[in-house]
Amino acid sequence: MAESAFAKSVQDIQNFAGTGLSILEVSHRGKQFEAVMAETENLVRELLGVSSNYDVLFLQGGASTQFFQIPLNFLSSKAAYTDTGTWANRAIKEAQGYGVVDILASSKDSNYTFIPKEYSVPSDADYFHCTSNNTIYGTQIKQFPNSSVPLICDMSSDIFSKPVDVSKFSLIYAGAQKNMGPAGVTLVIIHKDMYGRKADRHIPTMMDYKIHADNGSMYNTPPVFPILVSKYNLEWVKEIGGLNAMQKRNTEKADTLYNAIDNSPYFRGTTAKDDRSQMNVTFVFEKEYEALAEKFDAACKEAQLSGLKGHRSVGGYRASLYNALPLESVQALVNVMETFA
Amino acid sequence: MAESAFAKSVQDIQNFAGTGLSILEVSHRGKQFEAVMAETENLVRELLGVSSNYDVLFLQGGASTQFFQIPLNFLSSKAAYTDTGTWANRAIKEAQGYGVVDILASSKDSNYTFIPKEYSVPSDADYFHCTSNNTIYGTQIKQFPNSSVPLICDMSSDIFSKPVDVSKFSLIYAGAQKNMGPAGVTLVIIHKDMYGRKADRHIPTMMDYKIHADNGSMYNTPPVFPILVSKYNLEWVKEIGGLNAMQKRNTEKADTLYNAIDNSPYFRGTTAKDDRSQMNVTFVFEKEYEALAEKFDAACKEAQLSGLKGHRSVGGYRASLYNALPLESVQALVNVMETFA
Repeated sequence: MAESAFAKSVQDIQNFAGTGLSILEVSHRGKQFEAVMAETENLVRELLGVSSNYDVLFLQGGASTQFFQIPLNFLSSKAAYTDTGTWANRAIKEAQGYGVVDILASSKDSNYTFIPKEYSVPSDADYFHCTSNNTIYGTQIKQFPNSSVPLICDMSSDIFSKPVDVSKFSLIYAGAQKNMGPAGVTLVIIHKDMYGRKADRHIPTMMDYKIHADNGSMYNTPPVFPILVSKYNLEWVKEIGGLNAMQKRNTEKADTLYNAIDNSPYFRGTTAKDDRSQMNVTFVFEKEYEALAEKFDAACKEAQLSGLKGHRSVGGYRASLYNALPLESVQALVNVMETFA
Repeated sequence: MAESAFAKSVQDIQNFAGTGLSILEVSHRGKQFEAVMAETENLVRELLGVSSNYDVLFLQGGASTQFFQIPLNFLSSKAAYTDTGTWANRAIKEAQGYGVVDILASSKDSNYTFIPKEYSVPSDADYFHCTSNNTIYGTQIKQFPNSSVPLICDMSSDIFSKPVDVSKFSLIYAGAQKNMGPAGVTLVIIHKDMYGRKADRHIPTMMDYKIHADNGSMYNTPPVFPILVSKYNLEWVKEIGGLNAMQKRNTEKADTLYNAIDNSPYFRGTTAKDDRSQMNVTFVFEKEYEALAEKFDAACKEAQLSGLKGHRSVGGYRASLYNALPLESVQALVNVMETFA
């Protein structure tokens, strides 16, 4: 997240919007916080180009709650999913609790090193679900598939990193904690048509998207502070030029690192080039140089580069290049890779 | 919440636990935040005297999510509830989605001005649910009923305001935002016996209490910052002497205000004296003095006393005396009441 978001948040803990009270103690029903909710929604709409056909909701429970809330609401008989990694898998498992899940394609057999593209979405599915970016494996959908049924996407780890054509989707969701704000708030962008597609089963009030929409995400007490910080962070995204500028920034960061990997005799990327994630860059030592890992790790540590250990299911290294990470940090890593060579 | 909690939170936004990073951006899997989780749990256990037979969970979604998560998990055939106000009502409504709800007693016909006591809990109920404090109506359970079936209580608005004999309960839950911390985290204290009482229906992973217990409330990303602030607030509760000291403080505050109401010819309390809440004091003008309301409101405003408007279903005034409110603020209100007289 942006430094400016931290500074503004600190200010509001000390004195929120001139109330003399802390944002941590004010009522969410006060006009000052209602203004924060409205401004945050407007920023989401403006940055992503969300039309009035959609509601923008700020919920709780993370993407993990959406994994079941979506099939609970919309899976009547059969839903279609692609299996592109750990999070897609969790979504599939939760959907199987409510009906038939048609797994259209999976890259599991190759340890999720690519995004499957050779499939078609059945027209009798209640919806089609995909995961835009796979944090553990370092793959990312570059072109969303065509779907005659409602397209639903988990964008937790790459939302606000680049422009998205929201009009292609019926529902987009994202846990905030990568590019939007701090942990504790979940963004849901839902097409109003979806309210008419509810499955015929009991849906608790808190799991009903329309209840939250009708109440401006204040049916119950919202996660006040995480929403406030998200607002400040999205203001920063807007200040630097919006999602086109953000994409340019992120492309430059990712290209810098992937080029260094491709030009190094020591390292190789773990994923198909076409499917490389701009958010999570995964790479390993070439087999013959694996013995050098210890030295490289020490060099990274000396350069104060941390959090580079790859997930145990992939091994090697993973550099996460979320919005807030500056190009300089990527260059510092590239320098270590080159000096090391 | 305590001022000290705000100050410590600000510090951690700038530099969390010496990491050089903000608490708003660190991984919840880091050892520094794992320590925060452990310390917060320990404070809950120490302050409330929670034995190792119970798990202490930090979840999301507020009490409103517990309203359905409890019957989803534990309502097999019939559950018993008492109807003591708006929140109890919402809990009942959500339970009715899963089975038969036996409403043992209700004070609805008297606009919830008292806590019903003349009932017995049926031994064939799956559990018995009550609400310890009713924020809108200003009533509070002073002695919890005996129950041969698991006793479940919504303590959202009076937890940490006084000691509680946790061993009487099978499950206690509370949205944090009254006395525990900022909005965005829900406390659940659950007896481990409850895991064997699961209803025979599909329960999504995120709605399974044991999943959260087995993962130390980190099955998915927890609401990091609200948990941190809760820790600091509970440290303050401990510093001032724990829940016995807090009860003394809260009793003094409530007595001061109730005495002023009882001794005034102009005002009367709206609830049965035995059931008066120490958290929310509701009072109205005596009928013959109602015309004075405008003058009183102006006097309150002049004394910078705000947030005193009663809920529309009760009318009149409501003073909320949560833990953080100092006695001086109560005295300021009493002064206005007396000067006005």
